[in-house]
Amino acid sequence: MESIAQYKRDETWTPTEKKLARIAFDKAFERQCTAISQEAKRMLETTTVPSDIFRVQEYLTEQRRIVDRLYDYRYSRLLAVFGRLLSDGWVRESDLNGLQPEKITKIKHAASFYSQQ
Amino acid sequence: MESIAQYKRDETWTPTEKKLARIAFDKAFERQCTAISQEAKRMLETTTVPSDIFRVQEYLTEQRRIVDRLYDYRYSRLLAVFGRLLSDGWVRESDLNGLQPEKITKIKHAASFYSQQ
Repeated sequence: MESIAQYKRDETWTPTEKKLARIAFDKAFERQCTAISQEAKRMLETTTVPSDIFRVQEYLTEQRRIVDRLYDYRYSRLLAVFGRLLSDGWVRESDLNGLQPEKITKIKHAASFYSQQ
Repeated sequence: MESIAQYKRDETWTPTEKKLARIAFDKAFERQCTAISQEAKRMLETTTVPSDIFRVQEYLTEQRRIVDRLYDYRYSRLLAVFGRLLSDGWVRESDLNGLQPEKITKIKHAASFYSQQ
């Protein structure tokens, strides 16, 4: 496939696309945070020794690192970001309905790239 | 009161005292971790937005920093450590029964010092 670098190029985003992208982005963030919350709850419910709380802390710190790095809303990065979110299941194809077909193709391309990592 | 530095001096610990101190130390650690766990659970149950999970992460990271710094089991530090734990409520006076009265006095001294901080 083509280099990931191409996804860093500036794309033209119409106002409608920008609105849609923001919604898809926020929804993905919400889904991922909800999943992290659920896992933290599950871990807290199944602790066997009190110091297990720090395993929850390590898990959350690692997840924060991942989330902080991933959720970059610059339009120049957004196709690659959506590719990653699609690959990880936080964005669904239906969330992308309304983007230009060319953008969707690139996002799917990036997703398949990330899925092979 | 006397300087905290005095609590860093080497003390003589009998084998019985060492055993007792270890139990009191571990019990305090367990109580503190349990309290941190309960607070994390409470926070998780009362989140209003998904990103609140990272407030839990910040809370746990701060608590880990405190715990890592506090629980120092070197005998040269133990009287000051117990003083702090007594002041914070993680060690109870009854946990210290069996230590030489002189040590208990120093621990209480340190506790009152920390309580005034």
